[in-house]
Amino acid sequence: MNLHDSLTSPVSESMNFLNEIAHRYPDAISLAAGRPFEGFFDLDDVPRYLQLHRQYLMGRHGGDETAVRRTLLQYGRTKGIIHELIAEHLRVDEGITADPEHLVVTVGCQEALYLVLRALRRTERDALLAVAPCYVGVHGAAGLVDMPVLPVAESPERGIDPADLRARLAQARAEGLTPRACYLVPDFANPSGVRLDLETRRELLELAEAEDLLLLEDNPYGLFGTPGGPPTLKALDRRARVVHLGSFAKTGLPGARVGYVLADQEVAGGVLADQLAKLKSMLTVNTSPIAQSVIGGKLLANDFSLRAANTREREVYARNLSQVLDGLRERFAGEPGIGWNTPAGGFFLLLRVPFAAGDELLERCAEEFRVLWTPVHHFYADARPRPVMRLSFSHLQPEEIDEALNRLAEFIRYCIRRID
Amino acid sequence: MNLHDSLTSPVSESMNFLNEIAHRYPDAISLAAGRPFEGFFDLDDVPRYLQLHRQYLMGRHGGDETAVRRTLLQYGRTKGIIHELIAEHLRVDEGITADPEHLVVTVGCQEALYLVLRALRRTERDALLAVAPCYVGVHGAAGLVDMPVLPVAESPERGIDPADLRARLAQARAEGLTPRACYLVPDFANPSGVRLDLETRRELLELAEAEDLLLLEDNPYGLFGTPGGPPTLKALDRRARVVHLGSFAKTGLPGARVGYVLADQEVAGGVLADQLAKLKSMLTVNTSPIAQSVIGGKLLANDFSLRAANTREREVYARNLSQVLDGLRERFAGEPGIGWNTPAGGFFLLLRVPFAAGDELLERCAEEFRVLWTPVHHFYADARPRPVMRLSFSHLQPEEIDEALNRLAEFIRYCIRRID
Repeated sequence: MNLHDSLTSPVSESMNFLNEIAHRYPDAISLAAGRPFEGFFDLDDVPRYLQLHRQYLMGRHGGDETAVRRTLLQYGRTKGIIHELIAEHLRVDEGITADPEHLVVTVGCQEALYLVLRALRRTERDALLAVAPCYVGVHGAAGLVDMPVLPVAESPERGIDPADLRARLAQARAEGLTPRACYLVPDFANPSGVRLDLETRRELLELAEAEDLLLLEDNPYGLFGTPGGPPTLKALDRRARVVHLGSFAKTGLPGARVGYVLADQEVAGGVLADQLAKLKSMLTVNTSPIAQSVIGGKLLANDFSLRAANTREREVYARNLSQVLDGLRERFAGEPGIGWNTPAGGFFLLLRVPFAAGDELLERCAEEFRVLWTPVHHFYADARPRPVMRLSFSHLQPEEIDEALNRLAEFIRYCIRRID
Repeated sequence: MNLHDSLTSPVSESMNFLNEIAHRYPDAISLAAGRPFEGFFDLDDVPRYLQLHRQYLMGRHGGDETAVRRTLLQYGRTKGIIHELIAEHLRVDEGITADPEHLVVTVGCQEALYLVLRALRRTERDALLAVAPCYVGVHGAAGLVDMPVLPVAESPERGIDPADLRARLAQARAEGLTPRACYLVPDFANPSGVRLDLETRRELLELAEAEDLLLLEDNPYGLFGTPGGPPTLKALDRRARVVHLGSFAKTGLPGARVGYVLADQEVAGGVLADQLAKLKSMLTVNTSPIAQSVIGGKLLANDFSLRAANTREREVYARNLSQVLDGLRERFAGEPGIGWNTPAGGFFLLLRVPFAAGDELLERCAEEFRVLWTPVHHFYADARPRPVMRLSFSHLQPEEIDEALNRLAEFIRYCIRRID
């Protein structure tokens, strides 16, 4: 039985390999997993959040329990039931003014991304620009709609190189392609952890306007950084150039699988959000209102501020990040060919090593040194090993980080000895 | 901004129009909505089911609460966490022997359908056969992957006309197309309510084997019929010719948005279920484990039998069905040009009238006669009015049914007078 090409793409192989190796070496410490810290997870939060949101709905519906039951348990609104709460959260935490009708609540941010790409990809000439290296799921979603992903260079300082974006746009158009949008994570990108400064954000918005380009801003990590960072692209957007993709997997609860897209662009037939909702009605019909209710309750419990709700988590991530940075300095300072960047937040950083760090070496590292990391080629959607590893630290305890870095240092010294 | 063609297809317009008209005439009684009866919905069931499933997981994990927390609240298994419970349910209620590893738990049955079509649609020559008239969501999902849907005639007695299926297969192949599968609802189809007899099921399975065709069996209504009906196609399938699509929206709880696909076909790289899971990892990552847990708890609360869990609902549906049949007989018996079928279960039946019943007449009926029904052309994915209405009765109270039929009778008589 011949199946769709996306099933044999490097991206599909990537996701498979990375999942599978973690299962094969369960006692390896993982500097690979991008999971949120689960130390504060509490099973009793789920019924508590559900109860809070139910009380809120009872108030909204003037005490009509039948209406509340129908909202939570029956088929429901395609665009979701917590859109007003999310709009309020965006106002409080991100300074974004969102009309709730321009939001579509999705099954995680991945579905939001798929819907946007499905809407935009009409013909074989439509393409997506994306900062490279980039989150694997972008290549995954683009593969489902047979949409090529054209790489834009990441600048270690600026997060995206606007000059390269301009050049890539021109090149793609010269080749007869239609770049429909550019995907990026302005705050603490996956895998690099880089955050765009304000000047770059402004330049990008101007470029988008001048070039008639849509920017897909994905924002899963924005709340996990030092305060006082620059605003999101969407908060700066005055001309509906930005589609804002959001996730509650890191700030809310991964098990709810709730994300959203804010799409206020005017299109034929109304607003882009309504067109995305039409596609969603053919894909998943609606996002489980029960799952939405869990997130709705968490928003209500925290006066709509997930920044406030994640105070402890933010401390853990900041502590882990500085522990990793200190640990790398202790072990590798001055070492030729070894270097790393210093993100101001997020879940990830990039470690440069003096050898090509591909899947084969990861395999050996997992088996003999019992530590996992992510070969960066997976974020380029190809199989060419590069001398860079992504290290993640979001879900680890301090003692695990030290032990992981010890093992990693042993492995790196072993590889360097092999080269010499 | 030019968007994907599926957004301007008749299917998309259909779904929009049907949703929108219900909102515009909120005081019309709906013989159009296919919602399950909500009279027995109880908000307290949600925490109760969650608690039951949590206790079950505690047992499975030897009391390790961290493992249970991780299962329910963290990112998780792409194929789902209630696969073993669903396999047991299929054994108890459907006589289907399923390896839990061959199941993918999805965001409702709609995502399952999308995943199967996405996997099967490789080139422009790939097509889907589907019994016509057919559930709108099939055309919707096929539209997302640019896959044409070729109609197969429905026989009022047999549910599908195997001779026509054979003819359509031959015709499609002669035209250079590759029909990858045939979609059908063997038990109480939407919109016709027809159930396939055992002989037709056997003939279909033989035909599928002889023609190397996959059958996509969608089974949302199977448990809502008189007992002692024929087994599902999957229960009769000895050669992995059937992909079985299941929904808990009608038997479990619509608000959980949980469905599944059982795909035990051998393909390159393993079993079809694993390939569908790869696609799912790029689409929605995984189905909310909290939403799954609600359904898991309902399965546990009912010893895995949703037939048993739905005893009261089945009585309501049977009562409503016979009330509609009695009501039609009282109002239209012997009336020239008016007729209807007599399903043995399900949510729907078809009413034939002596005039083309399209969207314009529905609009007038909603406005002046305050009753809604569904023009059958929506199930053919075109805009050509036909003299048939789908009547649904799943969610109504007895007094609503009588009043709805009164209004419908007035409307039909009004239309007939207009013709004369």
